[in-house]
Amino acid sequence: MHLTLTAERRLDGGVLERAFTLDGIPGLLWTPATESAPEPAPLVLLGHPGDLHRMHPRLAARARHCAADGFAAAAIELPGGGDRPRSPEADQARADLQRALAAGERPSEDVIDRLVLPLVDQAVPEARAALDALLALPGIGGPVGYSGGIISIGVRLALVDPRIAAAVLFAGSYVPRTMFDEARRLTLPLHVLLQWDDEGNDRQLALDLFDAFGSPEKTLNANMGGHTGVPPSAAEAAARFLARHLR
Amino acid sequence: MHLTLTAERRLDGGVLERAFTLDGIPGLLWTPATESAPEPAPLVLLGHPGDLHRMHPRLAARARHCAADGFAAAAIELPGGGDRPRSPEADQARADLQRALAAGERPSEDVIDRLVLPLVDQAVPEARAALDALLALPGIGGPVGYSGGIISIGVRLALVDPRIAAAVLFAGSYVPRTMFDEARRLTLPLHVLLQWDDEGNDRQLALDLFDAFGSPEKTLNANMGGHTGVPPSAAEAAARFLARHLR
Repeated sequence: MHLTLTAERRLDGGVLERAFTLDGIPGLLWTPATESAPEPAPLVLLGHPGDLHRMHPRLAARARHCAADGFAAAAIELPGGGDRPRSPEADQARADLQRALAAGERPSEDVIDRLVLPLVDQAVPEARAALDALLALPGIGGPVGYSGGIISIGVRLALVDPRIAAAVLFAGSYVPRTMFDEARRLTLPLHVLLQWDDEGNDRQLALDLFDAFGSPEKTLNANMGGHTGVPPSAAEAAARFLARHLR
Repeated sequence: MHLTLTAERRLDGGVLERAFTLDGIPGLLWTPATESAPEPAPLVLLGHPGDLHRMHPRLAARARHCAADGFAAAAIELPGGGDRPRSPEADQARADLQRALAAGERPSEDVIDRLVLPLVDQAVPEARAALDALLALPGIGGPVGYSGGIISIGVRLALVDPRIAAAVLFAGSYVPRTMFDEARRLTLPLHVLLQWDDEGNDRQLALDLFDAFGSPEKTLNANMGGHTGVPPSAAEAAARFLARHLR
C-alpha cells in the first residue's frame, strides 16, 4: 500500500504531527522534533477504539509520552471508524452487545464473535501494511511496540508480526473465545492494563485472558477509575515498559 | 517502649544501617547517609516474613531503594521470627498449613486463622511502638509508608495507624476471612503486588482481597516469577508509588 503525507504541524512539547493516508486509510504519525536525527527512532503503533478525530487529544498525549522517550508513534483509522465505510454487520453486532449490557446480561459468544472477529481480520493486515510503509520513512526504525486499543487486535498483531517486540494491551473489551488460542501462543513481553471497575467489560474474562497469555514476561496493572480513567501513574508505567523493551 | 541503638555500619551506596532493640525486639534502621540533613526524612516500614538475618540482603536492597528516594527505612523482627521466642501454636498452625498444601488441599479457615490472627494481634502493636520510637529520632519524620511482608499485618496496621499514608501490600500469603472486613474499611492509597504463579498462595483469594479494599486509589501489579521472583520493574513501580505519596 502507498503512504501519502497530507499535512503536518508542530504540537506543544516539540512533537511533529503528520497526517497521512495509506491507500485511503487516514493515519497520524508523531515524531520527536529534534534538529539532529541520530538513530532511527523505534516506533509505537497506538491502538484506539476507532475515530481518530474524536480520539485525537488522547492519542496526541500518548504520542507525546512516546516522543519524550525518543520514540515515533503512529495510529491508523480502524475499519468502520471515523469517515471509513461502516459495516452493517458490525453495527448490528454492536447494537446487540449494547442491548445485552443494558439488560444486565452477559453478551453471547455469537455477538462477541460477530463484533470482534471481522474487525480483527481486517484491521491487522492494515496495521501490518502501515508498519511496512512507516518503517520505510527516514528517521523511523525498529523495534516496534504496540500499545492500547482493542485487545483482540493487539493479540493477533503481536502473534503474526515478528516486528512487534513488546505490547501494552488494554484489557477493556470483550474477547472472542477463539482469541484465547492465539493468546496462549504469544511469547513477547506484555504489559496488560485493566480498569478494575470498567462497567462495559468482563473483569473475569480479562483475568482469564491474562492467565492464558503464553509470554514468560507479563505484567497485569489494574487500577480504579472506570473504562476511560486510566490514572497517570499507570500510563507512566506502560511508557516505562515500552522504554525498557524498545531501547 | 525504649529504643536502644546497638551498632551501625555504612552500606554500599551511601546508606547508614543502624541496628537497634526495642525492649528486646531486634530491628534495623536505614537512613540516607547525607552530610547535610535538610528536612526530616519520611519513613518506610519494611514488612517481611520473619528472621531479619535471613532476610537481610533483600531488606537492605529495598532500603537502598528508599534511601535513593530520600526516605528512611526500618524493619523489626516478627513475633516468633529470628531469635525471638517461638509460639508452639503458630508452629502447629504452620505445620498444618504445609501439610494441607503438600496434599494439594486448600488450607482450612481454621488453620489460616490460627496461623495469622495471633501474629497480627501481636505484630501490629509492636510495629506501632517502633514507629513511636523511630519517629522521635532526629532526622526522621512523617509521613510513613508501609511496604511488603505479611499482607494481613499491613492491612491491620494501615487501618489502625493514621500515620501510615500509603501502603505497598504483597499479596503473597493466606488471609483470614475476618481480615476482609478490615480491608473494606481502608481508605489510604494502596499498591498491591501479586505473584501470579505463586504456588504457596491462593490467587483467587488475593484477587478477592484486592477487590475488597475500600481505597479509592488502588493498583494491582501482578507479575510472573514465583513467590520470591518479584521482577525489578515491579520493585521500581512500588518505589515510585511510595515516592508519589510520601513526598
